Amino acid sequence: MLTRIFFPSLLFTLAFNVQADEGQWQPHQLPLLKAELKRIGIQTPAEKLADLSRAPMTAIVSLGGCSASFVSPKGLVVTNHHCAYGDIQHNSTAQRNFIADGFLARSRTEELPASPNTRIYVTDRVEDVTKQVLGGLDDKLSGKARYEEIEKRVKALIATCEADKAYRCSVPSFHRGMEYYRIRQMMIRDVRLVYAPSDKIGNFGGEVDNFEWPRHTGDFAFLRAYVGKDGKPADPSPENVPFATKDYLTVSAEGLKNGDPILLAGYPGRTNRYKLPNEVRFVRDLSYPRRVAEYEADLAAIADATQSNPEAGVRYASVTKSISNGLKKLQGLLDGFARRDIAAIKDEQLAEFKKWVEKQPNAKELKNVLTQMDQLIKADNDLTEEQFAFSVAAKSDLLSSALQLYRLSVERKKPDAERESGYQDRDLPFIKARLTRLEQTFVSEVDQARWRASLQRYQKFPADSRPMGLDPLLPSVDAIAGLYHNSALHDTTRRLEWMSKDPQVFQDSQDSLIQLAVKLYDTTMSLVNRRKEIDGNLDRVIPEYMKAVIAWKKSLGKPVYPDANSTLRVTYGTVAPYSPKDGLIKGPFTTLEGILEKYTGKAPFDAPKGLLEAAREKRYGVFKDKVLGTVPVNFLSTADTTGGNSGSAVMNKRGELVGLNFDSTYESVTKDWYFDPLMTRAIHVDIRYMLWVMAEVDKAENVLKEMTIRYPNAKDRSAH
Amino acid sequence: MLTRIFFPSLLFTLAFNVQADEGQWQPHQLPLLKAELKRIGIQTPAEKLADLSRAPMTAIVSLGGCSASFVSPKGLVVTNHHCAYGDIQHNSTAQRNFIADGFLARSRTEELPASPNTRIYVTDRVEDVTKQVLGGLDDKLSGKARYEEIEKRVKALIATCEADKAYRCSVPSFHRGMEYYRIRQMMIRDVRLVYAPSDKIGNFGGEVDNFEWPRHTGDFAFLRAYVGKDGKPADPSPENVPFATKDYLTVSAEGLKNGDPILLAGYPGRTNRYKLPNEVRFVRDLSYPRRVAEYEADLAAIADATQSNPEAGVRYASVTKSISNGLKKLQGLLDGFARRDIAAIKDEQLAEFKKWVEKQPNAKELKNVLTQMDQLIKADNDLTEEQFAFSVAAKSDLLSSALQLYRLSVERKKPDAERESGYQDRDLPFIKARLTRLEQTFVSEVDQARWRASLQRYQKFPADSRPMGLDPLLPSVDAIAGLYHNSALHDTTRRLEWMSKDPQVFQDSQDSLIQLAVKLYDTTMSLVNRRKEIDGNLDRVIPEYMKAVIAWKKSLGKPVYPDANSTLRVTYGTVAPYSPKDGLIKGPFTTLEGILEKYTGKAPFDAPKGLLEAAREKRYGVFKDKVLGTVPVNFLSTADTTGGNSGSAVMNKRGELVGLNFDSTYESVTKDWYFDPLMTRAIHVDIRYMLWVMAEVDKAENVLKEMTIRYPNAKDRSAH
Repeated sequence: MLTRIFFPSLLFTLAFNVQADEGQWQPHQLPLLKAELKRIGIQTPAEKLADLSRAPMTAIVSLGGCSASFVSPKGLVVTNHHCAYGDIQHNSTAQRNFIADGFLARSRTEELPASPNTRIYVTDRVEDVTKQVLGGLDDKLSGKARYEEIEKRVKALIATCEADKAYRCSVPSFHRGMEYYRIRQMMIRDVRLVYAPSDKIGNFGGEVDNFEWPRHTGDFAFLRAYVGKDGKPADPSPENVPFATKDYLTVSAEGLKNGDPILLAGYPGRTNRYKLPNEVRFVRDLSYPRRVAEYEADLAAIADATQSNPEAGVRYASVTKSISNGLKKLQGLLDGFARRDIAAIKDEQLAEFKKWVEKQPNAKELKNVLTQMDQLIKADNDLTEEQFAFSVAAKSDLLSSALQLYRLSVERKKPDAERESGYQDRDLPFIKARLTRLEQTFVSEVDQARWRASLQRYQKFPADSRPMGLDPLLPSVDAIAGLYHNSALHDTTRRLEWMSKDPQVFQDSQDSLIQLAVKLYDTTMSLVNRRKEIDGNLDRVIPEYMKAVIAWKKSLGKPVYPDANSTLRVTYGTVAPYSPKDGLIKGPFTTLEGILEKYTGKAPFDAPKGLLEAAREKRYGVFKDKVLGTVPVNFLSTADTTGGNSGSAVMNKRGELVGLNFDSTYESVTKDWYFDPLMTRAIHVDIRYMLWVMAEVDKAENVLKEMTIRYPNAKDRSAH
Repeated sequence: MLTRIFFPSLLFTLAFNVQADEGQWQPHQLPLLKAELKRIGIQTPAEKLADLSRAPMTAIVSLGGCSASFVSPKGLVVTNHHCAYGDIQHNSTAQRNFIADGFLARSRTEELPASPNTRIYVTDRVEDVTKQVLGGLDDKLSGKARYEEIEKRVKALIATCEADKAYRCSVPSFHRGMEYYRIRQMMIRDVRLVYAPSDKIGNFGGEVDNFEWPRHTGDFAFLRAYVGKDGKPADPSPENVPFATKDYLTVSAEGLKNGDPILLAGYPGRTNRYKLPNEVRFVRDLSYPRRVAEYEADLAAIADATQSNPEAGVRYASVTKSISNGLKKLQGLLDGFARRDIAAIKDEQLAEFKKWVEKQPNAKELKNVLTQMDQLIKADNDLTEEQFAFSVAAKSDLLSSALQLYRLSVERKKPDAERESGYQDRDLPFIKARLTRLEQTFVSEVDQARWRASLQRYQKFPADSRPMGLDPLLPSVDAIAGLYHNSALHDTTRRLEWMSKDPQVFQDSQDSLIQLAVKLYDTTMSLVNRRKEIDGNLDRVIPEYMKAVIAWKKSLGKPVYPDANSTLRVTYGTVAPYSPKDGLIKGPFTTLEGILEKYTGKAPFDAPKGLLEAAREKRYGVFKDKVLGTVPVNFLSTADTTGGNSGSAVMNKRGELVGLNFDSTYESVTKDWYFDPLMTRAIHVDIRYMLWVMAEVDKAENVLKEMTIRYPNAKDRSAH
């Protein structure tokens, strides 16, 4: 009567330590965390991790919005399936559907061009330019003047850096304007698709499982970086050669077990960890609920407008997916705020900080800073809502294009260096790409219906949240059809022609949406200028606050990492389960058997036949985990991640690749505001599942051979 | 940055053994399981557990539908709150609401009478009477004649046993008619309510958490058995004295930890473990889905009829609750059948059995038995559906009363011994109780509306599932109001008067529902007689099958337990979590902190202020679990239970009380058909939570003092 029951997805220990692994660290900060890294078991020296000229950091790249890493000396890059989705889609047709069937280039000649917008960015230099950006700024400058002076300096720093056309440079601010770093990235423009599993693997679980655990998604794909024969970035060309990667990550097929340390490196997008209690309350009580209502209403409007038109439905599928994703994230944030009073935690932290302030010699100045911040944050929040109201009033893809085009025409009259950031020559290819891409997600009737619905909602907004002077300029709901009828902007060629036209041509145009854009220009510029004034003032005040916060934390022996800003960061943690509620444990591993459990044969729970067979026949090969007795699929860690970390390399204590980051649990969504070590878990795809799919399902032997894979032991290696 | 995170609800071990603890054993079978009991760590000798004249079995009692146990020498009984609910309700008024506020008698004089229907049954003798029941039966008897002959012998055996009025006796069949045991139970008729916590504890989670885990229900209450001064059962009277319990359970405040062995004893109601594959397919594909549809439609009809009448809603609350509970169970069964193909498992088992059969000397006879069973099961299923159709056609509480009353009048014309079981003199008090109780859950308009709706559904049933000849006898939907108008059965006094009337009075009556009952009599009797014919034949054939199954299992070294039949059984197991799906672990413990997590201040997640305070202040007292660091509330075990096991004593290896059984997880519902050791978990309330509530929340010092409680150690004991 005895059955040995094995719980494959959890390694039990009586109790376990979870590192409160908060922090998205700039690589140069890692030596400050030496003791911490050593304690959790990381063997790679902190100095090595801090060095952008050596592995592993040289291997960590950005795709612009996603992270990735080099895994061969020939420019092979691994990232998430959802990060390479556009590249797969770009090459797919009804006849050869690489989304459904997957794609594998068995040789370099079979590799396909990535989407024209795909870039690989390799960070190779990070310089502290705080002095150049902030040095000698007159404290008496207005907010707007200050903002514009900083912009000017930043643009100059970028221009110098980009003199070498191989690079894309940026000067983001850190600690909310306290520091500025100039970041130089080699921008590789010839990217090709090497291998992607079917979306039945890469997107298994789809929207249903998004943000959820248990998770069973094989969210990985491979690209390759190509450069000119001179080794420098070049436009796509058959003459180009694979980028000779200086360093790349070794792959460990050994994987990890519960409690093991990990390192994670990538390009996290944006966090708000140092926001004040009132900023939390603003989003929680006003801003997010308002956006949730808008997103829901907009989704309903799209559903309504496309329901009798399946083709329009297909065109808006990605729009719907993107709004739904944003909505789920917002709902997760609101649920999280409801579950845990983060504003109250921030209150306590602020109270502690204020106590410390009282004891400082410059207490008076610091208190003055806090008072100014309160006022500025209030103004900031008010303006944010007016900007949001404007976006609702103008929720028309065609009108947005017209507004952007007219603004561009005005900016283009200025010398390049004086133009607004985003409208410089360096930005034109991106503007063109966006204006072109619109055709894939646009149906005139649907765009009109969305606008009609949003305009009606806008009319019910409180008067003080509507931008001053806007209402009389807006069309009536009934006039929208006429506006579209009398505009040619729906035609991509005609739309793109406007990129090179003079403001006067706009002002004289009979195109009704161009006319409306011209009419709205002053209102939009008034919002832009108010934003500059507020941001310029925040840029002056907040760094004083952040300096004090850093000094305070230093007095407590705690280093401070800056909020995420899409720059290269390193986080560390451990493989760990979590308890979302009493009596329930989630993770840290899922297994192949879970795919069989979820499998329904219908999207999003369909799976390739070869995978089902291999899993049912337990053909685990060398990828079988000894504890779990099967192949792990996804796992959880305590690493501190956010959007942009998709595709980030998850590395073991030796810096070897053991997985890819691709999501977080629903309970983690509030981590952008507050990192709760008990609840926050990032979701990774296990390297063993990736290798297993390549070996057993897709027979991607050539890709496997190109990587340097360390197998658990010699016997296993020979088995492969 | 290090936080020690403790997962309080789970004791982790690398992997763990779970006993596949299938089996609801008759106490006399336990010596067969000696080695097994020893292996899991039970120290109480099997022979002692088998002895109905010694502790612990003498302490295990039935409440008729629920289980309970004696916990003091003065007749103190502990059971589930939901088992004592009627007793609490019986004493509650708007002014003194013991359901909401709980009830505690601080002395014996404050104890309140239980509901008039409450009985405590103490099993004191179990005799094998198979020979007396089956001996010398002519194989050529028709099914009906065989059925009636068995019934006659059974009634005679019961009558002899009940000659002593202190006892209630029964002769249930075991192994589907293979064996019969005469069970003698002392029936205690004076039961009083001693202590019940508020339903905010006793029913915390309510319907929402029913069948669910994580669970946080304090489902316990205390009653007391009273007898006459002669020590024998007596009608309720102030002269009565507490029953001097021969044996009672010692309580262990030490509780259990993950992996600990448990014993569980009580009165499980009904299981279907030995049914054939086609019987599974019948319920899965036809019978259950049809019932689910009916239950849902009936709930909708009730909701519709009560929505504008809150008072009617209150009257039907318990009806609704009972239907919802049945519905959830059926849905759980269908979900379980969909998750795991139990029919296919039974196919495999049957195929194995058939292989064994081939090798037996009487293979030909056994195969003939299997063929006969197939035919009988088909006829059984068909008749079951006709009976169900009749119940839908006649879904009127008043008509049901009329049908029962007329049947009673017919039976009462016969000598008592010849009457149909259920209509003998010994049954009259129960019939009267049911007919009386109807007034609590009856509103004429609602009863009519339910009947109208169900009659319309009946008319859409397939013709071959409707009882022959029934349709022309049924009223039209429009006639129902008139039938009620011309009947006095809604009046309890008038209804009860019919209990003593002659058939002729029924036949001459102008009461429209009595008239209808008379008209339907032949059809109902035709169903009854066909049922007897089939059951009589099954009684002849199935025991041959069961004997072969037992011989086959014996050849494999496996003892066989009979299906549950509301008689005293013992099961054993271990405290264990389970994994309902890959990547997720549930249990085995929940804690006080989980109550705080679920608490909303509104039913069913309200909690008494005293409990919230004690939990928030972490006043755990001696009830703190060392591993969990807090007070455990509920826990899971692998024990094999079913309906009727509610209130069953959960005992540790020494036979001490450590909890009460009260529910199963949703994934366990199919266990009535197939025991899946990986998935099946019973839910228990932890003794430490019970004692903590009594000590910290309800200050039930007198009840605590009356029990013999073994505290973890002397130091802790003094703390109490």
